[in-house]
Amino acid sequence: MHLDLDDILGMDSGYRRHFMNTLPGPRGVHLLGTKGHRGVENVAVFSSVVHIGATPPLLGFILRPLTVPRHTYHHMLANGHFTLNTIHPEFLRQAHQTSANYPLEVSEFAETGLTPFYTDRLKAPYVAESKVKIGLELAEQHEIKSNGTLFLVGKVLEVLLEDDAVGESGHVDHARLQPVTVAGLDTYFEIGPGQRLPYARKDNVLMV
Amino acid sequence: MHLDLDDILGMDSGYRRHFMNTLPGPRGVHLLGTKGHRGVENVAVFSSVVHIGATPPLLGFILRPLTVPRHTYHHMLANGHFTLNTIHPEFLRQAHQTSANYPLEVSEFAETGLTPFYTDRLKAPYVAESKVKIGLELAEQHEIKSNGTLFLVGKVLEVLLEDDAVGESGHVDHARLQPVTVAGLDTYFEIGPGQRLPYARKDNVLMV
Repeated sequence: MHLDLDDILGMDSGYRRHFMNTLPGPRGVHLLGTKGHRGVENVAVFSSVVHIGATPPLLGFILRPLTVPRHTYHHMLANGHFTLNTIHPEFLRQAHQTSANYPLEVSEFAETGLTPFYTDRLKAPYVAESKVKIGLELAEQHEIKSNGTLFLVGKVLEVLLEDDAVGESGHVDHARLQPVTVAGLDTYFEIGPGQRLPYARKDNVLMV
Repeated sequence: MHLDLDDILGMDSGYRRHFMNTLPGPRGVHLLGTKGHRGVENVAVFSSVVHIGATPPLLGFILRPLTVPRHTYHHMLANGHFTLNTIHPEFLRQAHQTSANYPLEVSEFAETGLTPFYTDRLKAPYVAESKVKIGLELAEQHEIKSNGTLFLVGKVLEVLLEDDAVGESGHVDHARLQPVTVAGLDTYFEIGPGQRLPYARKDNVLMV
């Protein structure tokens, strides 16, 4: 199968959406929690979280164009805080259900049965069920001119996770925590067998 | 385990790098191929590819600060093209080895045994062994002011993959293709069991 740009643009729009969204392969997926200035809690699925740096600790994600109301965005602007929470098989269906189009005044926590959890530090709800909870403040916004999406950057203010989930080297043990990944908008995968490879050096070739 | 920003900044730098890099969980990982103006081919591991949009088809990724020479970046600027290629268990060690610090005049293809593959359309090499090959042109650059990294946006010009790897709905069948994911810089995971959930609607609750 060899497709050029015209082939892609000629696809049926639903087919193209699934094709382009799944094409790069499974990626990380998180529940993003916010709280609006009237106190309404919002939680939604995002599959575009990237690591930007460790010092200072920064993560980024893509927000779709603001052509329809984006509760997540307006809540983040209102109080500056948001949370990223891993999704696990035990509550995958509830997590996915948060992607339904609820009105602004409705809390996806209440609608799906997920549990909001607060710390003193952050003005946004964590998802109690998540095994990795990351609290952030909005640091930067970049508009992607090609299609009007936003790339948002958050600075990590707080992290909550199980004590024994971090190894001596600092690696978080996801083989143990078992967060899911997602391809596109709807196809979730559990984690299969894993392996840690040594730091690659040009004179110390790892190839089999 | 409850960490605040001071705890994170107080970590040993190597520990913090692993901790922050692995914290969000496994994510997609790709080989990015470029070709410099002197004809040197470059291929390197990137774990920050995100879907930006389907119409036009756009993907983005993070490039670390330009405080040391970045062959990938200079090659992309030179001819405007780059490729993203999935990584599979059969050549995982070779793919990881491309992350070694080779000099500019050395091709990571030659050093690792991966095979460059060209089409008429693109001035950058694909990785022949990859089951999903995506050819792009550089469309936008955004500097992340918080730490000097770049968020680069590419427009998809070409896609190569197996004929029977795409379902009637447009979904690429990754359960079949089996690309790997990565947590941090070195911990690779195979894909486990998957499931496709229906589109979430507020009145058609999926919860178990």
